[in-house]
Amino acid sequence: MKYLPKINHEIQLIFDKKLEKINNSFLKDYYSELKDYFLSGGKRIRPLMCIAAYNAFSGEKEDQILKACVGTEFLHNASLVHDDIIDKDDFRRGKPSFHYRFRLYHDNYKLKKMVAADFGNNLGILGGDSSFFFGLEAYLNNEFNDASNIRGVQLYEQAYHEVCDGVLIEIDMVNRQELSISDYIEMISLKTGALIEKSTIIGANYANVEEKYQKLLSTYAINLGILFQIIDDILGTFGDEKVTGKPTDGDIREGKKTALLIEARNKLKGAELARLNELIKNPSMTDNDVEEVRDLFQSADVINSSKQLALKYYEEATEALNGLKPVIKEAESEFFEDLLNFVYERKF
Amino acid sequence: MKYLPKINHEIQLIFDKKLEKINNSFLKDYYSELKDYFLSGGKRIRPLMCIAAYNAFSGEKEDQILKACVGTEFLHNASLVHDDIIDKDDFRRGKPSFHYRFRLYHDNYKLKKMVAADFGNNLGILGGDSSFFFGLEAYLNNEFNDASNIRGVQLYEQAYHEVCDGVLIEIDMVNRQELSISDYIEMISLKTGALIEKSTIIGANYANVEEKYQKLLSTYAINLGILFQIIDDILGTFGDEKVTGKPTDGDIREGKKTALLIEARNKLKGAELARLNELIKNPSMTDNDVEEVRDLFQSADVINSSKQLALKYYEEATEALNGLKPVIKEAESEFFEDLLNFVYERKF
Repeated sequence: MKYLPKINHEIQLIFDKKLEKINNSFLKDYYSELKDYFLSGGKRIRPLMCIAAYNAFSGEKEDQILKACVGTEFLHNASLVHDDIIDKDDFRRGKPSFHYRFRLYHDNYKLKKMVAADFGNNLGILGGDSSFFFGLEAYLNNEFNDASNIRGVQLYEQAYHEVCDGVLIEIDMVNRQELSISDYIEMISLKTGALIEKSTIIGANYANVEEKYQKLLSTYAINLGILFQIIDDILGTFGDEKVTGKPTDGDIREGKKTALLIEARNKLKGAELARLNELIKNPSMTDNDVEEVRDLFQSADVINSSKQLALKYYEEATEALNGLKPVIKEAESEFFEDLLNFVYERKF
Repeated sequence: MKYLPKINHEIQLIFDKKLEKINNSFLKDYYSELKDYFLSGGKRIRPLMCIAAYNAFSGEKEDQILKACVGTEFLHNASLVHDDIIDKDDFRRGKPSFHYRFRLYHDNYKLKKMVAADFGNNLGILGGDSSFFFGLEAYLNNEFNDASNIRGVQLYEQAYHEVCDGVLIEIDMVNRQELSISDYIEMISLKTGALIEKSTIIGANYANVEEKYQKLLSTYAINLGILFQIIDDILGTFGDEKVTGKPTDGDIREGKKTALLIEARNKLKGAELARLNELIKNPSMTDNDVEEVRDLFQSADVINSSKQLALKYYEEATEALNGLKPVIKEAESEFFEDLLNFVYERKF
């Protein structure tokens, strides 16, 4: 991935510009932690999609699209910072999550007017907010024209609202008993698909891509996002913790409406279905409860049926990509195809 | 205030545009609550400053500046939503704060996979985030040119980072023992001054105001903000709860570094100073402790000396305003002067 270090460099520049102007030691710590958090990993799928869409049609100003492509990566990480507070996840990418870093930082104070947990969460709220705003830099500090950049900001705003709607629908779903597959697909297409799609369209916007091809790019990207989330659901419960780096009991405990749970509910009957519903309802499940849910999932063969569900979106993305192939460059065509296969087959 | 209903109308339009497109009942509740929260009060100082700066020099497109002026009001309210979580304030403007509304909302669920307090805080985090993004609409949906709007977004971004730096410095200060008046002034000029200043400069930007007059507007607005905060500090401890609508023990309990506390520390000596420091250190003060701090404040005559401190910024703002008077319209000149006097003399 030749773009990865370049993307990370652009992210770093945005933080360094801010850090340069700071004297206050606490502010320095705050922005340094945020920078370190951003640079501690991440696949950079969103910037890569933006660059690929741009290069597929134009590719004239590589250094400029590198500046613009990081916007949605800031949005993504800002959401992760806030999600980690919401989900009470203290670790991310094998390191302390952003709010947790400041829970630890609190030890350094002589005077403690706040509880450490509150201090961490409060700094986490601000850290996410700062990151949402840093993302705007992508559209403000490049050499594309003002009209393209205004459109970039518009897409950035739309992206957030769609992601947020997805997160809200998910929070609400967890507290509701009813559940349909179309609700689930709507939710993940917003929660996960929208930002991947907007990243792609931002790249297309800067390359002045015709609307009909923008639509195909949208279709490809949203379906890729849906596919990604279904596979993520599978790995979230049946993945190898050592490979994914994530505990495999979180989704079940939270009662998350995953592809697995939906498939299980569709396929289980009678006593098994009643038992599953009873277990999931419980806000504080034991390890045995989690194991029993996992067994019920297995007995319903949900891994295979979720993979089957995923295949539908894989095929829709492929079809959109086929419509693009005659007009885009071969390298990007390959990139989009490889990415689709990677997402479908990934084990981590 | 002829502009107040017009400003509120523009805020309402932004929410209505989103609400129109929503079918999901939970999303409808979420955005309706947010809209209600925004329209439940507020002095709209920031939009008014933006309009005044614009009208002072141009005023050609009143309907357009009305669209653009609400951006920083969104930013302000977004910060309030997050601040209320941070400060654990369950009420705002006499009604439940945004996160608290959803703590109450949680009762409607049959299934409770989240604790009500977490549910409220989580929705509050998202509510603030949504509001930050809605603010961008101000610069994206008006008829000013793209260059002015890009500059609007730039100022919007800068405003957030400055406000955030002020909030961070304040959080850090609360946990530190040392304290200087210049640290305090830096903190409030960021926390409170910056957004009032950026609101003003956004108005000036749309009126294409010459840089030297933009500088005078900046000076006026930042000093107005500092003045506002010092008076706010006085009212926060010695105001009439029935008039201000805020409890008068919060600042003392939190150990907030207010103008009062700084003045008291500068003026008290020996046993009184030691006692003050000891009381403030305590993270869980009794009612008697709070009363004792208030008495120590009184014995140091801090209301008068804080008013004296405020006077300095009142005078700096007046001087900047005098530099503007020859070139701005009389109506706006009066508005700026009246506002300054209002802020200096307000009792609520």
